[in-house]
Amino acid sequence: MTEENKKVPITVAYGDGIGPEIMDATLRIIMAAGARIEPEVIEIGEKAYLEGFSSGIRPEAWESLRRTKVFLKAPITTPQGGGYKSLNVTVRKTMGLFANVRPCVSYYPFVKTKHPKMDVVIVRENEEDTYGGIEHQQTTEVTQCLKLITRPGTEKIIRYAFEYARAYGRKKVTCFMKDNIMKITDGLFHKIFDEVGQEYPDIEKETWIIDIGAAKLVDTPEMFDVVVMPNLYGDILSDVAAQMTGSVGIAGSANIGESVAMFEAIHGSAPRRAGQNLANPSGLLLAAVQMLVHIGQNDVATTVQNAWLKTIEDGIHTYDIYQEGISKQKVGTREFADAVIQRL
Amino acid sequence: MTEENKKVPITVAYGDGIGPEIMDATLRIIMAAGARIEPEVIEIGEKAYLEGFSSGIRPEAWESLRRTKVFLKAPITTPQGGGYKSLNVTVRKTMGLFANVRPCVSYYPFVKTKHPKMDVVIVRENEEDTYGGIEHQQTTEVTQCLKLITRPGTEKIIRYAFEYARAYGRKKVTCFMKDNIMKITDGLFHKIFDEVGQEYPDIEKETWIIDIGAAKLVDTPEMFDVVVMPNLYGDILSDVAAQMTGSVGIAGSANIGESVAMFEAIHGSAPRRAGQNLANPSGLLLAAVQMLVHIGQNDVATTVQNAWLKTIEDGIHTYDIYQEGISKQKVGTREFADAVIQRL
Ligand SMILES: CC(C)[C@H](C(=O)O)[C@@H](O)C(=O)O
Ligand SMILES: CC(C)[C@H](C(=O)O)[C@@H](O)C(=O)O
Repeated sequence: MTEENKKVPITVAYGDGIGPEIMDATLRIIMAAGARIEPEVIEIGEKAYLEGFSSGIRPEAWESLRRTKVFLKAPITTPQGGGYKSLNVTVRKTMGLFANVRPCVSYYPFVKTKHPKMDVVIVRENEEDTYGGIEHQQTTEVTQCLKLITRPGTEKIIRYAFEYARAYGRKKVTCFMKDNIMKITDGLFHKIFDEVGQEYPDIEKETWIIDIGAAKLVDTPEMFDVVVMPNLYGDILSDVAAQMTGSVGIAGSANIGESVAMFEAIHGSAPRRAGQNLANPSGLLLAAVQMLVHIGQNDVATTVQNAWLKTIEDGIHTYDIYQEGISKQKVGTREFADAVIQRL
Repeated sequence: MTEENKKVPITVAYGDGIGPEIMDATLRIIMAAGARIEPEVIEIGEKAYLEGFSSGIRPEAWESLRRTKVFLKAPITTPQGGGYKSLNVTVRKTMGLFANVRPCVSYYPFVKTKHPKMDVVIVRENEEDTYGGIEHQQTTEVTQCLKLITRPGTEKIIRYAFEYARAYGRKKVTCFMKDNIMKITDGLFHKIFDEVGQEYPDIEKETWIIDIGAAKLVDTPEMFDVVVMPNLYGDILSDVAAQMTGSVGIAGSANIGESVAMFEAIHGSAPRRAGQNLANPSGLLLAAVQMLVHIGQNDVATTVQNAWLKTIEDGIHTYDIYQEGISKQKVGTREFADAVIQRL
């Protein structure tokens, strides 16, 4: 076997709710497209949690992640109550997945949207801010949470945003923060954006206070290209931006670290739709496309992306993006995957 | 003079940038409509700051606010740099203005919007969260900010939202927070929403995690009626919601405390437009309408609101909301005010 054809081991979690169906569809499509990968399946979430692994992740699963360094993850239901922490956040923090990259692209007229020309990539810092879980109840009446912004963390994410812009031929990086109020923390984020930005004279730079920036994003997304921001703002505005393209169901995301990376849809496990062959696998599939680029299989990534786009353009749509007049055929998860495979 | 006709003293600040023009227009309109008020003008901002009053507010201005308890404020430019704190935030905190009420209503087709049926009131907590200015640089590399959520503060804002809904015949109160991550602080906010909500069986209740809630707000604002949330989320989403109605330029806001209240447009001082008779006074005027209701002059409030709406419906528009085909006449600040006065 030549180096080129060597299969890359990746860790896969089928997740909960609609997870297994969309993962099955996604893997079928990328394998049919010739992905040179070797999936290694782990089970994470509630079951492991109930067995006493407080993170919801068993030691062998961590071992797999550390070895393959690439994780394709379907949505997982957060168990209710108790000391259970979001599994997503646990993986992001433990593995140092500092950048959360969420492309939000409109496919008008094939997917209905009020923003036909949207093409924005949210680059969200993924470890700091109020995501540290440092919270306490000081008295029965007073609770506090610590927001953290560090120089190394901020430098990393800002530099990532500029490098991403360069690699993908994007023209502008915009920074959102609120340094008229958080002068020290968001002030540091702003300052480092200005500092690091100087290393990228080829790329246009812009900053907005998050309130008016968000208003502009929602009104005129065409103003934006790559947008970088602290964790919590990015959490909110990436859901907003994905929905603006027509559906949170078609956005994938990449969680990038120095050595490990995790790829996932941005939507949740939708338990009420589970097991009915209804769910749109596009979010996870587009995350898998990001994964294929990440492991250097750009040829396969392009093949999958094009076949997916062709399927959408041919009007073969799952229920969530079905529209009278534009859609030609309402299909289930499996049939959608078959249609993409036909177009590879 | 009968009690009915007694004039209510109110404190007025003309502000910076476009402030003086839109305040002049606003006062002319409400006086012509028969507002029984006695404006007391104070000057706040950079000048007082440079004189050594670190808040930008002189003692006599504080004295006026404490006496009249009603403050109509035009936008003020935040002086650059140094230890200068947002004047807005200083007034809100010093006077205990715990509720920030921002009605976001579409006036389609007279004001262009992608959301013709929007009618959402954002009720934003206005003192706590990361607005305490409790921040520090721990090392050269690490900065932190303290987020505060208290039981009394949260009870007050949640109860205010429900009372507002009742008073204005609104059917539903929705709560946005992020308690899957901030389990203690946002968890308290959520818990108190559920507790206080039980006292209002006549009003529908709903909660959303802020990320997906914001996505739904931006996609389908018709789902929402009154929406209550912590300070920072409310800051971001009230700009977003106002912009969705067509322009941040037409939204007013009320900052309500136990004894004092402040009324302002939600937009800024737009220094580049200053002194040109261009600015739309609608945001401040609608804030003044909220003020008239607050001081019990509902008759005048209704007269002003109707004349303003008639002016907008007659297509008499300032540059910011002018649209070919719908607008009949492009007017300046003064002419817009004259047109409203003609329709009183
Ligand atoms: C599930 C939740 C903890 C997570 C987050 O807040 O980051 C999710 O909303 C996301 O954006 O991936
Ligand atoms: C000017 C700024 C401090 C203020 C805030 O953040 O509250 C403004 O954005 C607002 O919404 O009134």
